[in-house]
Amino acid sequence: MLFRQMIEPDSSTYTYLIHCPDTGKTALIDPVLDTVERDLSLLQELGLELDFTLDTHIHADHLTGAKRLKELTGSRIVGPAVDQLPCTDIGVREGEPFRVGNIEINPLFTPGHTDHHHAYLIDTGTHRMLFSGDALLIEACGRTDFQSGDAATLYRSIHDKFFTLPDETLVYPCHDYEGRQISTIGQEKNRNPRLGNSKTLEEFVEIMDNMDLPYPRKIDFAVPGNQLCGACPPNVPEEYRQPCLRHDQG
Amino acid sequence: MLFRQMIEPDSSTYTYLIHCPDTGKTALIDPVLDTVERDLSLLQELGLELDFTLDTHIHADHLTGAKRLKELTGSRIVGPAVDQLPCTDIGVREGEPFRVGNIEINPLFTPGHTDHHHAYLIDTGTHRMLFSGDALLIEACGRTDFQSGDAATLYRSIHDKFFTLPDETLVYPCHDYEGRQISTIGQEKNRNPRLGNSKTLEEFVEIMDNMDLPYPRKIDFAVPGNQLCGACPPNVPEEYRQPCLRHDQG
Repeated sequence: MLFRQMIEPDSSTYTYLIHCPDTGKTALIDPVLDTVERDLSLLQELGLELDFTLDTHIHADHLTGAKRLKELTGSRIVGPAVDQLPCTDIGVREGEPFRVGNIEINPLFTPGHTDHHHAYLIDTGTHRMLFSGDALLIEACGRTDFQSGDAATLYRSIHDKFFTLPDETLVYPCHDYEGRQISTIGQEKNRNPRLGNSKTLEEFVEIMDNMDLPYPRKIDFAVPGNQLCGACPPNVPEEYRQPCLRHDQG
Repeated sequence: MLFRQMIEPDSSTYTYLIHCPDTGKTALIDPVLDTVERDLSLLQELGLELDFTLDTHIHADHLTGAKRLKELTGSRIVGPAVDQLPCTDIGVREGEPFRVGNIEINPLFTPGHTDHHHAYLIDTGTHRMLFSGDALLIEACGRTDFQSGDAATLYRSIHDKFFTLPDETLVYPCHDYEGRQISTIGQEKNRNPRLGNSKTLEEFVEIMDNMDLPYPRKIDFAVPGNQLCGACPPNVPEEYRQPCLRHDQG
């Protein structure tokens, strides 16, 4: 399997490229509208055609590149079936592996950050690679105060679905705000200040209830835009309009 | 490939288990005398027999488990050929891959922490896994003030041999003192406070020259002991003698 990790710096979102060399099939996990051109350049450089985009959830901090990439490459839009978005081509659910050629991507239903959040798990033979979305971040986790988020639900998702994986499992998050790129399940069990070292559900809920976070700066246009798989809704403020303008001209 | 990461808590040393399922061959990278019994239990639990131990260098902070494991399992002792230790069964050198069954381990001559230090690189098909020894640690590096260490030499090793690897390369260090387990080459380029963000050789040498570190507490017996592949020299202080006693009784 060919693998790349790329960052969109404004929202610190990681996009992951997955390619099956046996079949030529290629997917991007959590592409961002702002970096669609960068992704296309990489695909071209590697001589790959894009078959699928997969989103882990309806993001509130950036617009997905799914719709734009579909328009430009014909890639199919994959996302949690439970979202029931009319723009999604293929809905995935836990227990039903999604195949990118010979690569089996296992969706894990992991609500709490949003009520429909799914992580994706790939077993390479040597490593399990967990694309943890916004559920589990490095020494952190996604916030639980918007989009039907719920701290107790997130705690159970992480403990039941992630912390039961082997310690060596590689954790590839959807974001990191400090330039970190990777963790492991063992490392998060040891070091995550909200969830690690046997923190109880009650302790976690208290931590999340007292985060005192600012209102998400893109949520008002990102959520409706992502419910359309990355369309630019009319209420995008001037300062964030550039990717949308490129999109509309495309 | 089957893979495990284990820690010896007193010296915060990571030992790595590598197993080729096609051939049944198994190796341990940087085993520690204190945790030989733990390693043997894991091998037994997994139903594996040990074929090789590989050390990255002559450690100063712990005694290697190589000799003890050889006595107990018949495993062969592998280490840098340039060390010219009479107790080593197989000497490795850069440019000559060492095979554990179908797994190819590529030694990288990376002096600077010690003058004979080698890292080991494995390509799993999806990931490159760099066992970086004491040359590159997570947001740190091995000290350069003992054992023919040299900061400028270490800088060149890391920049020429490690930072030329793809950013996604997994970095598995020989130590971490804060419970971290993994990094990537990209992350170390970004975040390593001594070596990252285009720090110059001169800046690195100045940092290393001003570390003001305490005298290594085990060096006086660890280095001569490791020159015998993990024998217990007579000068082991009482407080560190327990693994040696187990060893002598074994």
